Amino acid sequence: MTTIIRRFNDWPIPIKIILSFALVIFLGSILLSMPFSQLDSSEANYFDHLFGAVSMVAVTGLFTQPVAHTYSFIGQVFVLLLIKLGGLGLITIVSAVVLQFGRRVSIQGEVTLQQALNRKDRTDFKYYILSIVKYTTLIELIGASIMSIHFVPAFGWRDGLFTSVFLTISAFNNAGFDNLGTASLQPYMTNPIINTVIPVLIILGGLGFSVWFDIGKRFKSLLLYKDWKDWRSLKRNYRHLNLHSRLVIKWTFWLIIGAMFLFMLSEWNHPETIGTLSLIDKFQVSFFQAVTLRTAGFGTVNYAELHMFTLMVFTVFMFIGGSPGGTAGGAKTSTVALAVILLSSEIRGLSNVNYKHHTLKTEIVKRALVIVVMFVLLNFVAISIITIFDGHVPLQFIFFESISAFGTVGLSADLTPTLSRYSQTVIMFAMFIGRLGPITIFTALANQDKKKKDVKYATGEILIG
Amino acid sequence: MTTIIRRFNDWPIPIKIILSFALVIFLGSILLSMPFSQLDSSEANYFDHLFGAVSMVAVTGLFTQPVAHTYSFIGQVFVLLLIKLGGLGLITIVSAVVLQFGRRVSIQGEVTLQQALNRKDRTDFKYYILSIVKYTTLIELIGASIMSIHFVPAFGWRDGLFTSVFLTISAFNNAGFDNLGTASLQPYMTNPIINTVIPVLIILGGLGFSVWFDIGKRFKSLLLYKDWKDWRSLKRNYRHLNLHSRLVIKWTFWLIIGAMFLFMLSEWNHPETIGTLSLIDKFQVSFFQAVTLRTAGFGTVNYAELHMFTLMVFTVFMFIGGSPGGTAGGAKTSTVALAVILLSSEIRGLSNVNYKHHTLKTEIVKRALVIVVMFVLLNFVAISIITIFDGHVPLQFIFFESISAFGTVGLSADLTPTLSRYSQTVIMFAMFIGRLGPITIFTALANQDKKKKDVKYATGEILIG
Ligand SMILES: [K+]
Ligand SMILES: [K+]
Repeated sequence: MTTIIRRFNDWPIPIKIILSFALVIFLGSILLSMPFSQLDSSEANYFDHLFGAVSMVAVTGLFTQPVAHTYSFIGQVFVLLLIKLGGLGLITIVSAVVLQFGRRVSIQGEVTLQQALNRKDRTDFKYYILSIVKYTTLIELIGASIMSIHFVPAFGWRDGLFTSVFLTISAFNNAGFDNLGTASLQPYMTNPIINTVIPVLIILGGLGFSVWFDIGKRFKSLLLYKDWKDWRSLKRNYRHLNLHSRLVIKWTFWLIIGAMFLFMLSEWNHPETIGTLSLIDKFQVSFFQAVTLRTAGFGTVNYAELHMFTLMVFTVFMFIGGSPGGTAGGAKTSTVALAVILLSSEIRGLSNVNYKHHTLKTEIVKRALVIVVMFVLLNFVAISIITIFDGHVPLQFIFFESISAFGTVGLSADLTPTLSRYSQTVIMFAMFIGRLGPITIFTALANQDKKKKDVKYATGEILIG
Repeated sequence: MTTIIRRFNDWPIPIKIILSFALVIFLGSILLSMPFSQLDSSEANYFDHLFGAVSMVAVTGLFTQPVAHTYSFIGQVFVLLLIKLGGLGLITIVSAVVLQFGRRVSIQGEVTLQQALNRKDRTDFKYYILSIVKYTTLIELIGASIMSIHFVPAFGWRDGLFTSVFLTISAFNNAGFDNLGTASLQPYMTNPIINTVIPVLIILGGLGFSVWFDIGKRFKSLLLYKDWKDWRSLKRNYRHLNLHSRLVIKWTFWLIIGAMFLFMLSEWNHPETIGTLSLIDKFQVSFFQAVTLRTAGFGTVNYAELHMFTLMVFTVFMFIGGSPGGTAGGAKTSTVALAVILLSSEIRGLSNVNYKHHTLKTEIVKRALVIVVMFVLLNFVAISIITIFDGHVPLQFIFFESISAFGTVGLSADLTPTLSRYSQTVIMFAMFIGRLGPITIFTALANQDKKKKDVKYATGEILIG
């Protein structure tokens, strides 16, 4: 056993992250498949539990058997536990493990860990991780309290509180699981509590911890120096945030506005979705769907009924996903942002890639574009494999489900439960890879090949067209 | 008039190319819509003629009304003329025009022209262009002669010769038009002449003129020095070709093998395609479909009957397309190759992008990746717009048709004629943009923004995930 631990310590950190993820999923699937985790109505076999465990740890929300008809109270507690672990990111757990063993991490290992945690300054990890746990718990407590205003009167104390806690954790961790049954949140389509608390939780979880810390730092310095004049000027405060925070906040804002606008444009008169609703409810429902695309995956409309254009547009938002180093998935807002900035610079023939009077590092920008392309390729491969086994399903639904899985969004046109086991396995891998995130995969691959030399030869000319 | 010509001379070359393209298409559509160009059976209105003219000049092969039921002998001669103009590339014509006016081209203009023509050495354009015209005509004469062995006995002298010429020009220019009616080449599925001559013409046309010149140069030096020992050794001769030629030949070879293998894998037992054929015919038909993906667009099977997996796989090959500076379309083999090489270097953490003991220029490699991403984006936008107007069509067919149009391939699951006029307009733009090619669009866009400065600021840090 000690040998195994010693060996584990020798492995590169990305490999540790991947293995820890896999281990947690495996243990989770065992716990979920225990008899005491099941309801009498459960029709799940081990594959369903494994699929569920992947989906929970990957905070996706796709399932082959719905939680409400499968898991007992104890089972649902396991579900929450897996979501919590997944949402905090196994990266966090791994780093805790690494630090726990007391062994000094090599400089290179520390750099990788910093990258994985999306921290650029070499601050004390323990403090960072404890703060994350503290603040996430606080936010979840507040969220659950407000939610219980609706659910306690509706379901009674025990079930009402538990449902509030369940939905809060699921929303904040961008997991998208619910314990309400097949209709999910559709009955709460126009409920004002659901339409405010859940979006706030989703957005907070999706911003990424480093943005929290930046906002927190700004807030603290305001309290310290009592600089209330600045405090009043929201815009000036915003400008004091670092470049990353500003980019993430700006993109999150415009992605929500954009998705909301396009959803309304496409579904305004569609009777199966928002066509028959009042003006205010149309806005409310559209706002909720726009926010849920930040990889939460709750739906208050039936996605199988959406216009094909809505499905196509939504895939773009799911592909982009949330921000790095938080509970959200996808290619990540900042990654896509850098890729877009690079594209526009290239088209204009500029050699420096600039954003807000800063020049971005060529390496990072190039890597962002590579990540985006890799994500496109991965999606294409997954979609193609699914067409082999489920060639009768119209492509738009496979397309939507695959991007939803890779982005760990979990929105579904009710396709996953009807797919073949082969295709469900593809979806499972998609969720796993999607949650590990491109950077982890990237670093894992790069580490394996350290021996190869980075040779510089004479220049070769190739014509492109 | 002189003022217009003088003004035209002042414009940047990519703009000239785009405008000349548009002008030829417009004139072509007028000629095609003339009464003497029509058959009695013609049901085409001006939109159909315009669509056809775009498709011909863009050497795509998609149509809203089939040639055989629409155009008279004279009309079909116009069709060939437009294909010839499109295949040689309006770039060629523009450069001819530019040289004709006798005005000295600025150094910068000359560089752009060289890029557009995919020539890196500053050789005499006139010689280059005349050689292209000479060799294309020679190859087409040989092709048509062999084809007439089948078609003259079948259709008689006049029609047999004309059909041979028509198919040869269409194949060599990767146009994919036929004058045989709705079944197209499907009746010739297992015809050995069709299955050899047409693929050879497609491949030759798709390699790109610069590769011809390179092979020609090698061939000449062999004749000159009577170095027959080398001549016998095919491999050694191959190694003497320049880096670009070798990359293009290698990729063309493997793309054909790959597409053939995947087609057989997917359709081997499919009774609607090759399931009922003999072993040899299965290979013959698979080879033909693999070659036609080099953006020719002839089909000897019914593409509406293909397995969804085949459709998905084929989109990859159509997306890649042929090689730059020839008659083929798509993102181009060498462009995709460089993007792939960059991806694999990035994943392995190498900062130098190497190919065959040569280091490639960072700028070119980055541009290749940008082109690929732009092509993906353009496709996505086109597909999404089509779903607005034709939301009832399963996505796989829209997907296939759009990539076929952008790649100027022209393979079709019989969708284009059934689409709404709005979607057909989208397809029309896709073909136009696809034939102009990413480099031309790129240069055109870059030229407009020359005033903006390429500022270098302090480094900005953004985290990606
Ligand atoms: K999710
Ligand atoms: K074509």
